[in-house]
Amino acid sequence: VPLLGGDVEVRFDRAAVAVDDATIGLLRDVCERVDVDDRSRLAAGRDWWPLTVGWALAGEVPARAGAVARPATTAEVAGVLAVCSDRRVPVTPSGGRSGVCGGAIPVFGGVALDLCGIDGIVAVDNDSLLVDVRAGTFGDRLESDLRAGHGLTLGHWPQSIALSTVGGWLACRSAGQYSSRYGKIEDMVVGLEVVLADGRVIHTGGTAPRAACGPDLTQVFVGSEGALGVITEARLRAWPAPAYQRGVAYGFATFADGLDACRRTMRRGATPAVLRLYDPTESSRNFDQPGCVLLAVDEGDPGLVDAGLRVLHQESRPAVRLADGLVERWLAERNDTSALEWAVRHGLVVDTIEVAARWSALGAIYGGAVGALEDLEGTVSASAHQSHAYPDGACLYFTFAGQTAAAEDYYRRAWDAVVAVTLAQGGALSHHHGVGLNRGRHLAGALGPAFGVLTAVKAALDPAGILNPGKLGLPSPFGDAPWP
Amino acid sequence: VPLLGGDVEVRFDRAAVAVDDATIGLLRDVCERVDVDDRSRLAAGRDWWPLTVGWALAGEVPARAGAVARPATTAEVAGVLAVCSDRRVPVTPSGGRSGVCGGAIPVFGGVALDLCGIDGIVAVDNDSLLVDVRAGTFGDRLESDLRAGHGLTLGHWPQSIALSTVGGWLACRSAGQYSSRYGKIEDMVVGLEVVLADGRVIHTGGTAPRAACGPDLTQVFVGSEGALGVITEARLRAWPAPAYQRGVAYGFATFADGLDACRRTMRRGATPAVLRLYDPTESSRNFDQPGCVLLAVDEGDPGLVDAGLRVLHQESRPAVRLADGLVERWLAERNDTSALEWAVRHGLVVDTIEVAARWSALGAIYGGAVGALEDLEGTVSASAHQSHAYPDGACLYFTFAGQTAAAEDYYRRAWDAVVAVTLAQGGALSHHHGVGLNRGRHLAGALGPAFGVLTAVKAALDPAGILNPGKLGLPSPFGDAPWP
Repeated sequence: VPLLGGDVEVRFDRAAVAVDDATIGLLRDVCERVDVDDRSRLAAGRDWWPLTVGWALAGEVPARAGAVARPATTAEVAGVLAVCSDRRVPVTPSGGRSGVCGGAIPVFGGVALDLCGIDGIVAVDNDSLLVDVRAGTFGDRLESDLRAGHGLTLGHWPQSIALSTVGGWLACRSAGQYSSRYGKIEDMVVGLEVVLADGRVIHTGGTAPRAACGPDLTQVFVGSEGALGVITEARLRAWPAPAYQRGVAYGFATFADGLDACRRTMRRGATPAVLRLYDPTESSRNFDQPGCVLLAVDEGDPGLVDAGLRVLHQESRPAVRLADGLVERWLAERNDTSALEWAVRHGLVVDTIEVAARWSALGAIYGGAVGALEDLEGTVSASAHQSHAYPDGACLYFTFAGQTAAAEDYYRRAWDAVVAVTLAQGGALSHHHGVGLNRGRHLAGALGPAFGVLTAVKAALDPAGILNPGKLGLPSPFGDAPWP
Repeated sequence: VPLLGGDVEVRFDRAAVAVDDATIGLLRDVCERVDVDDRSRLAAGRDWWPLTVGWALAGEVPARAGAVARPATTAEVAGVLAVCSDRRVPVTPSGGRSGVCGGAIPVFGGVALDLCGIDGIVAVDNDSLLVDVRAGTFGDRLESDLRAGHGLTLGHWPQSIALSTVGGWLACRSAGQYSSRYGKIEDMVVGLEVVLADGRVIHTGGTAPRAACGPDLTQVFVGSEGALGVITEARLRAWPAPAYQRGVAYGFATFADGLDACRRTMRRGATPAVLRLYDPTESSRNFDQPGCVLLAVDEGDPGLVDAGLRVLHQESRPAVRLADGLVERWLAERNDTSALEWAVRHGLVVDTIEVAARWSALGAIYGGAVGALEDLEGTVSASAHQSHAYPDGACLYFTFAGQTAAAEDYYRRAWDAVVAVTLAQGGALSHHHGVGLNRGRHLAGALGPAFGVLTAVKAALDPAGILNPGKLGLPSPFGDAPWP
């Protein structure tokens, strides 16, 4: 990706809010590091949304921040937000900017708030399996520090683990590959430190494994994508680093058969960390196997792991057991996205769309969405796997590729098609990539009248509307979101 | 309890808001059943808070509602709230009124909103283990309908199961006795139907086992105790009714030893449904045993249950295994509160206080709270058990009894003492009984600056302040909460 001199084209700059010198001065009074050089301002306009990657290849970035604030402490974050609230300057918080929905891109200029300098483990209570960690900590560093220093694991393995931060996970409701045992990040979080739009610092939850002290305010900010407050620290549940791990693979005749085995396994109370089922297209492409490959990995206490995998084995009949090497191959290659990148570089319009639904709706969503993608003019490939299983349903993870001159139009139609099928079957718009810019146009429709609660909470907590404007489909005082 | 003619004394009536005839007329236009007789109005002022029970024995009720609305549909609830918002009339929602903190007592008069007429199962998706149930459904009816009609269980067994409703559980963050396997009600809920203060009906969540579509709005209303909206229906996770159940009992030398065995068991990933540890006072009183009795019950898939109980057995060494009859006795007597009622009738000031904290704080909270209660003049008995265990901590459930002429003063000092010890150790004010009136004075202090988020959300969702005023320690346009 050719980056990023001062003369690239800036796609959304027509909507930019300038950050004047007086504001820069005020920001520098409260935050030691505030960058205004071109390279910083342009780099803050990038993430891993396929559209921004494609634009970058064409010498274009979505938007240019007016300044990039890089706080090293919560107090500096509070200072920056107080200044920006006061002066009505948009603030776009970011972590590793590995998001794939444009959520960390400033679309109205203003201040980009880079939280990566607020990092590291603050405290570990090993008896209680709790870790306090700063929001800008990258996932791989957290996991290695927990293991080496404390014999613990978080159990959170998003594909982006080396590119993404704790704060980004929480802001966007991240899922790791081991979620059937460890849960998603919203299941792992016990409490938060959050800076509100006006600079107030609050602490939510954090006192106990469960409480009955009013609504769980932690969950107001988990998934708020920087639009309701800025997460600066989190208390997360950890687990003993497992000494025991097993993987197994099965081959099913059909995707429906495999889904049903996953469903019955979870229904009996088993919780294998990983339970992934690939459709015929992906089984063939990824594993050179006919039919549908199911991969399972579990880890932890040997007796509990073995008991759970026995349930899976019983429920997988009459599928055939496949070689364990398939699991090893997946474990080795699971974070490699080079095939996607290759496709983008070769002019294909490629993306993944993850949605979730109850078990009884998954068959119709799978068939309907793959069919709708295949019906689109330009589609080269459409496929899916079930990536995260729960007792009541699962995540379907679609991949599509198209070849067309009208790339952005095709991209939008592909998304609209999968979203329409999912919502018609009562499913959820997103399982773990969040909303950001890309799904913003769909959120009000997906939530229905409950969207009014989100807008009311937004207005109450951020009356000036400075926090990540243009995202989550929320109204913004700076205008409508430029995409779409 | 002598109930409840028109001439009993009404303790909080000095603060009552009248409901005039015009308003009664408007209410009757939108809700078929609106009662204004004395018996209904007084009965709506009762719950199971020990103070109200004591007052009733003295011929006193806390407050008198102006009218009792008994809607049979969500549309009727919406109509009642729209009228009351418009006319600035307080509304106090209630289910079974089995709460023990005064949360369902109208303290400013106005309308009591009895939701028990909105009941029954709406739909069951057995493949997805999801049940849609109306908020006024009582627990025992839901459980028996699920088992008989669908072969399912909710797994939620609060002591109040025959007296409490689904909506009450959700509003107050209820826990059942089997929570270490099935979770608390906030873990079981997938989505809600809620009527907002102005009468708008919204649906939160409900689409998928997990989602990343902004904050989980369901959790804004779970625990809101009727102050942010009125829950009229819920989608809950269920499980196959178990064919296999096992119980075991162990005897530990000390409470600390027993706590540590519970902690190590959960740490290894075992999830026995029940894991209860009694201190020496309660082990002696309830089971005629020396030392500290640990009871465990699990149910579900035999292989998983046996594997989990093996972990418990290993981690309970060197405790002695006690007779299984102790478990059977507990199962038979677990919902019997006659000893408490006997004590109240005999002039003792008796209550239970449940708090929760991380494992590393539980020892200090146990010792500090029992010591503080014993130090109070008038205390006859102070004891505790660990009632709900999680990987990161547990609930401690204190019981105190005092004999004193200054009953209410003693009662308040007992609560203040346990709360002070708990908060000083970083624990949570309540695990599953909620806040209501009794804990209202402590909530702002317990939440710290995050309380400002709760008040902001309250103001945004209920600008007229009509919903359950005087509870959760929230500011109210009708004055301060009369207790304390």
